[in-house]
Amino acid sequence: MRAVQVTGYHQPLALVDVPVPEVTGPWDVIVKIGGAGVCRTDLHILEGQWAEKSQVSLPYTIGHENAGWVSAVGSAVTGVSEGDAVIVHPLITCGLCRACRFGDDVHCENNRFPGIDTAGGYAEYLKTSARSVVRIGDLQPSDVAALADAGLTAYHAAAKAARRLRAGDRCVVIGAGGLGHIGIQVLKAISPAELIVVDRNADATGLALSIGADHGVVADGGQVEEVLGLTGGKGAEVVVDFVGEGGATGEGIRMLRQAGDYHVVGYGENINVPTIDIISSEISIIGNLVGSYNDLVELMALAAQGRVTLHTAKYPLDEFQRAVDDLDAGRLRGRAILVP
Amino acid sequence: MRAVQVTGYHQPLALVDVPVPEVTGPWDVIVKIGGAGVCRTDLHILEGQWAEKSQVSLPYTIGHENAGWVSAVGSAVTGVSEGDAVIVHPLITCGLCRACRFGDDVHCENNRFPGIDTAGGYAEYLKTSARSVVRIGDLQPSDVAALADAGLTAYHAAAKAARRLRAGDRCVVIGAGGLGHIGIQVLKAISPAELIVVDRNADATGLALSIGADHGVVADGGQVEEVLGLTGGKGAEVVVDFVGEGGATGEGIRMLRQAGDYHVVGYGENINVPTIDIISSEISIIGNLVGSYNDLVELMALAAQGRVTLHTAKYPLDEFQRAVDDLDAGRLRGRAILVP
Amino acid sequence: MRAVQVTGYHQPLALVDVPVPEVTGPWDVIVKIGGAGVCRTDLHILEGQWAEKSQVSLPYTIGHENAGWVSAVGSAVTGVSEGDAVIVHPLITCGLCRACRFGDDVHCENNRFPGIDTAGGYAEYLKTSARSVVRIGDLQPSDVAALADAGLTAYHAAAKAARRLRAGDRCVVIGAGGLGHIGIQVLKAISPAELIVVDRNADATGLALSIGADHGVVADGGQVEEVLGLTGGKGAEVVVDFVGEGGATGEGIRMLRQAGDYHVVGYGENINVPTIDIISSEISIIGNLVGSYNDLVELMALAAQGRVTLHTAKYPLDEFQRAVDDLDAGRLRGRAILVP
Amino acid sequence: MRAVQVTGYHQPLALVDVPVPEVTGPWDVIVKIGGAGVCRTDLHILEGQWAEKSQVSLPYTIGHENAGWVSAVGSAVTGVSEGDAVIVHPLITCGLCRACRFGDDVHCENNRFPGIDTAGGYAEYLKTSARSVVRIGDLQPSDVAALADAGLTAYHAAAKAARRLRAGDRCVVIGAGGLGHIGIQVLKAISPAELIVVDRNADATGLALSIGADHGVVADGGQVEEVLGLTGGKGAEVVVDFVGEGGATGEGIRMLRQAGDYHVVGYGENINVPTIDIISSEISIIGNLVGSYNDLVELMALAAQGRVTLHTAKYPLDEFQRAVDDLDAGRLRGRAILVP
Repeated sequence: MRAVQVTGYHQPLALVDVPVPEVTGPWDVIVKIGGAGVCRTDLHILEGQWAEKSQVSLPYTIGHENAGWVSAVGSAVTGVSEGDAVIVHPLITCGLCRACRFGDDVHCENNRFPGIDTAGGYAEYLKTSARSVVRIGDLQPSDVAALADAGLTAYHAAAKAARRLRAGDRCVVIGAGGLGHIGIQVLKAISPAELIVVDRNADATGLALSIGADHGVVADGGQVEEVLGLTGGKGAEVVVDFVGEGGATGEGIRMLRQAGDYHVVGYGENINVPTIDIISSEISIIGNLVGSYNDLVELMALAAQGRVTLHTAKYPLDEFQRAVDDLDAGRLRGRAILVP
Repeated sequence: MRAVQVTGYHQPLALVDVPVPEVTGPWDVIVKIGGAGVCRTDLHILEGQWAEKSQVSLPYTIGHENAGWVSAVGSAVTGVSEGDAVIVHPLITCGLCRACRFGDDVHCENNRFPGIDTAGGYAEYLKTSARSVVRIGDLQPSDVAALADAGLTAYHAAAKAARRLRAGDRCVVIGAGGLGHIGIQVLKAISPAELIVVDRNADATGLALSIGADHGVVADGGQVEEVLGLTGGKGAEVVVDFVGEGGATGEGIRMLRQAGDYHVVGYGENINVPTIDIISSEISIIGNLVGSYNDLVELMALAAQGRVTLHTAKYPLDEFQRAVDDLDAGRLRGRAILVP
Repeated sequence: MRAVQVTGYHQPLALVDVPVPEVTGPWDVIVKIGGAGVCRTDLHILEGQWAEKSQVSLPYTIGHENAGWVSAVGSAVTGVSEGDAVIVHPLITCGLCRACRFGDDVHCENNRFPGIDTAGGYAEYLKTSARSVVRIGDLQPSDVAALADAGLTAYHAAAKAARRLRAGDRCVVIGAGGLGHIGIQVLKAISPAELIVVDRNADATGLALSIGADHGVVADGGQVEEVLGLTGGKGAEVVVDFVGEGGATGEGIRMLRQAGDYHVVGYGENINVPTIDIISSEISIIGNLVGSYNDLVELMALAAQGRVTLHTAKYPLDEFQRAVDDLDAGRLRGRAILVP
Repeated sequence: MRAVQVTGYHQPLALVDVPVPEVTGPWDVIVKIGGAGVCRTDLHILEGQWAEKSQVSLPYTIGHENAGWVSAVGSAVTGVSEGDAVIVHPLITCGLCRACRFGDDVHCENNRFPGIDTAGGYAEYLKTSARSVVRIGDLQPSDVAALADAGLTAYHAAAKAARRLRAGDRCVVIGAGGLGHIGIQVLKAISPAELIVVDRNADATGLALSIGADHGVVADGGQVEEVLGLTGGKGAEVVVDFVGEGGATGEGIRMLRQAGDYHVVGYGENINVPTIDIISSEISIIGNLVGSYNDLVELMALAAQGRVTLHTAKYPLDEFQRAVDDLDAGRLRGRAILVP
C-alpha cells in the first residue's frame, strides 16, 4: 500500500510502498483510512523535535489523527466488525493499569502512539486496537478525522472545565483557532456559562460569536481589563487557554476570579507566578492533555448531533506535500485532511 | 481593658488601656479572650508589610488567632450565649454574597479581618460576629487558639487534598513545622493515604513519624529521588507544600505522579514551570487559603476527639514582647499563646 | 393594604384590609408585590392539609411564589435598595446553621416560610429578608413570580440530575406539566443529554418537543418499553420524575440503566421496590426539595438569557377567587399570577 | 484435580476429579487456589435459587471468593507471573464497554462470574483473567480469600458512603456481622466520621466497639430513638445498612438527617416509603453492589497495612461438607475457607 514516511529528520516526507498491516494479535483492528489529519506536530516531528522522546526508528509512517473503516479484526474483537466506520483514538492502551481501569487511559502506563512512536495513518491502512476504535455511524471519516486528536484535546479541556460551571458563571476561552473553535462549540453544548472569547485576530472572534460565544475580545493589549469589565470587575470563574504562549498564561491568570480555575491546553512559555498570588486568590492551574476513549465517544455524540463541526480542506494522499506546505505557510483555514 | 497595639511601623508594640468593646449590632459577639496566638504575620505587620493592603488606621490592636468565652451578644444572636467557650474564625463575613452562601466564606466579598484591618485579640476582649464563633465544649481556649488561623489553614489544605486520596495512594507533605504538624494529623485522621513527610530538619521528620507519618525524608538534596523511590518511581498522587520557598515548589512538582495534584500553602518563591510539563503530565497546581467556618467546625471535632493537638507556650498578655522576641529569634517550639 | 387571607379551613379565602408590613429588624426587606403565583399547595392549605405541619394561626395571608420591587430595607441591608425588582426565595433562612453555611439553605434549621407559616404574598406588600431576595434586572416581576417556587423546584432537580450527564447520555423526564416544562428547558440549557419526555397527554409531549426535548413518549401503558427501545434496551442514565403518583415511580425505576439515578420531585404514591432490585442494578433513588438561594440566582440567569420561560395567566389581586377556581377546575394553561 | 461440584439442585455437593484448567486465550490466568471462601450464596445455589438467573449447566464447580498463586498465564499477560500470590476479583470483565472503561467494571456488559455461571474456586485450580487478579505481596491467600467478595462488597459501600463524610459527621452501620465487620474497619480507616453500630446482638456491638466503632446500639426496638439521641435529635448524615430485612430498611431511613444518604447493601425486604417523605427530607436511597477491580486493589492496600482483618475458619478442601454444614447451622464465627 502507499504510505507517507519520515525517512530522515530535516528531509521531506516520502511516499513509499509498504505492506498492508495484518492482524497478529487477538485485539488488533486494521482500519482502512478514510481521512488523516495533518497536524502541526507532524511538522515538529520532521524537525526532529520528537526524536528523543519517541525513540522511533526511521523510516516510519506518520499521522495520528485518523478515521476510516474497519477492514479486519483479531479473534477476540466483538465490538466492531468489517465495514464499520470508526474514528481512531490516538493511543493504544493496555486496559490493565490503574489509570486505564479508572477511565483515565490517556495516562496508561503502557501506551503506544501510532504516528509518533509506531506506524500511523498517512497511509491506506492503519493497525490499531479494539480499545481504540469508536464507531461513528453515518458520519464520514474524512469529516471527523481531525476530531481524533485536536478535537479530542479541546473536548477534554472543555468538559473538565465545565464541571464547575453553573448558569450565570463566565468562562473565558483564549484562542479561537483550531482547538479553540472546537472548545467553544463544546462549552456551548454542555454548559450554561457565558462565553468570552479572546483572540488576537478580529476575524477569529467574529467567527467565535457566530458559533455561540457571547462576547468577543480582540487581544490588543487591553484584553485583561476588558474581561474584568465584562465580569463586573471580579474576573471569570474559569479560563481555558488554548494558546499558552506570548504572554497568554499570565494574562489568563489575571482574568480569574477568586477561587477560579485556569486550564492550560496550548503550550510554549513558562507559567511563572508568585506563590503568594496563587494562595491569596486560591486559584487552581490545571493541565490538560488529550482526552480519553470515553471522551472521544462523547465528542462523537456531539458531532452526530451536529453540535460540533469543523472546517476541513481535503487533499488526496499523494498530495501530502501540498497539505504540509499549506499548513506551514499559514494558508489553511480549518484542518488539512489526507484522503487515500 | 489592656490591649497590645501597633502604634507605628518599625516601632515596638505597646500595652495600652482601651475601652472594652461593646455590642452595637444585632449579630455582634464580644469574646473574653482566653488565648491569642502569636503569628509570624504579626511580625510582618510591625514591619509595615501589610500597611498598604490592610489600610488600617494606627493605633490598633493586633492578634488574629483567638479563642475565649462569650461575654455579650447582640439581640439577634441565638447560637451562643454568655459563658460559652468558643474559638473565633479569623474573618467576619457577610453571609449574603455568593461565596458565603456556598460555604466558601473565606472569599466573602465584604469581609473584615480583626487583628489585620480592625481591632484583634491581643487584649482582654474582642468584638466579632455570630457568624465567626464556634463553640468548643470542654476544650480550653488557650489550648486551641492557634488552630484558629494556622491550624485552620493546614486543615483546609489537608481536607481539600484528601478528597481524591484513596487507600494505597501516597501523599507527600513538605514541611513538618507548625502548619505541617497539623496537616499531618489531619491527613492521618481523614484519609487512608500513605504519608511521606519531607523536611530539612531530621527532628521534624522524626516528630512527623511519631504522629502518624509513614515515611520521613530529610531534605538534603536527594529528596525528590527519595520520594520517587518510595512511590515505585511514579511519584505521589498528591503533594501538600507547607513551605513554598527555597526551591520547594519545583521539587514538589517533580515529586508528582501523572495527573497528580500539587497543593501550595506556604509561600515565598515563584512557581515557574514550563507549560509543556504541566500539560504532558496533566498535573494541577492548587492554591490554598485559610479554611471556612465549616472547616473550623470540622477541625474542632477532630480536636475534641484528641486527633489533632499542638504544642503551645503560654505567656501572660503583659509579656507580649517576650513572646514576640522568642518567635522572632526562633526560640519557640510550638505556638506562643498570649493569655490575658 | 389589601390582602387575601385564610380565615378558616374549608372556607373561602377572604380579601381583607391589613396594615402594610414594616421593617423591624436590620435584615428585613419589604417587597411591593408585582406578582404572586397561585399554587396547588394553596388549595391544600385551604383544605387544612398543612394545618398541623405549619402550626400557623388563622387568619393569615397566603402566597409563597412572589416577586416585586423593594419598598423598604432594614438598617443592615446593602445588597438591594428601594425600587429594585426582585424575586423572593420562598424561605427565610438563618444563614448561621451548618446547612445554610454550606449553601444548602433549604435545609436551614431555623427557617420560616411566608405564605405557609407566616404572612405571604397574596397582598400588596410582603415582608421578607435580605437573605431571600434576588435582583432580576429588567425582568418583570409578574412574568417570573412562578419561578420562585415551582420553577425553583424544577431547576434544583434538573441541576442536581445534570451533574452526572455527559454527551450521549439519556435523561427521561416524566411529566411535562408546570414543573416538567421548566425542567426540560433547564436540562436543555445546562446539559448535553438526549431528553426523552414522557407524559400521558400528547399535547404535553408535543409542547416538550417544541422546547427542546429530543423524544416525546405518550404514557399509554407501553412507555417503559418505549423508553427502553430508545435507549438500546439498556435504560436511561437518569430519570427525573415530576409526577410521583399513578405508578410513575415504579415505571421510572424500570426505565433506568444499571447504576442509574432516579430523581423524584412529584409526590403522592409510595416508592415500593425490592432491595434486591436496588442492589443488583446499583441504582440510586434521590429526593428533591425546592432549590437554594444560589439555585434561584442561577435560574434567574437562565431567565434573563431567555432560556427559561413559562406561560402565565394574570389576574388582578381582587379576582383571586377566579384564579383559584380556574386552577381547581383545570382551566389554566400555565401558571395563574395575582397582580395587585 | 479435585473439585467440588454442584451435580443437581437440592442434592449434596460432590467431590470429583476434573482436568486442570488450561490457558487457551492470551489474557487467561490460571490460579492455584490457596483459599476459597464459603458464602451463603453457595447454599442458595444448591437450593436452585440462582438456576434461572445464571443459566449454568450442571455439573459445575462452585466458589466465587478465591485467592491463591498464579500457576500459568496467557501470552499477553505481563502484570503477573507464575508464583505471584493473588486475590481474584469475582468477575471476569471485558475492559471494552463504557462501564469497564470508567472503572465501573462491576457493571461490565459482558461479564462472566466464576462459581456462579462458570467453573469456580472450590478446586485446586481456577481459570480467570489478567483483568481479575490483584497481587497481594506477602499476604496469605487463605487469610484474604473472603475479602474477594464479602469484603469487597463491604469496602465498596463504605468507600462510596465515605465520600461525603467529614469530621464531626455521624455514620450509622446496621449489622456488625461478616460484611458489617469489614465495613466498620474500612470506615474507620478512610473517614473521620463518628461510627454508630446497630446490631440485634450485644456481642456483635461489643466486637464493633473493639474494632473502632464509637457507639454500639443493640437493636431491641428502641434503636431508632437511640440513634436520634446520639445525633442531637437530627439523625445521621449517612446510614449503611448491611441487613436489608426484618424492618432494617425503614428503621435505617428514619435514622437519617435531612439530606442524608441511606446505603443499602443487605437485602431481603422491600423498601417501601412515601414519596412525600423522600422529598420533604431530600434523602437519597443508594444501592450497592460488589466493588470494582480498583476497589479490590484499595482493600488489599488496607489489608496489607493491617487495617482490615477478618476471622476465618479453615477447612481442608475435602471437608467441604463440614464447612457448608457449619455455615448452614450458624456454628461459624467468621468466614469458612476451603484450603486445597
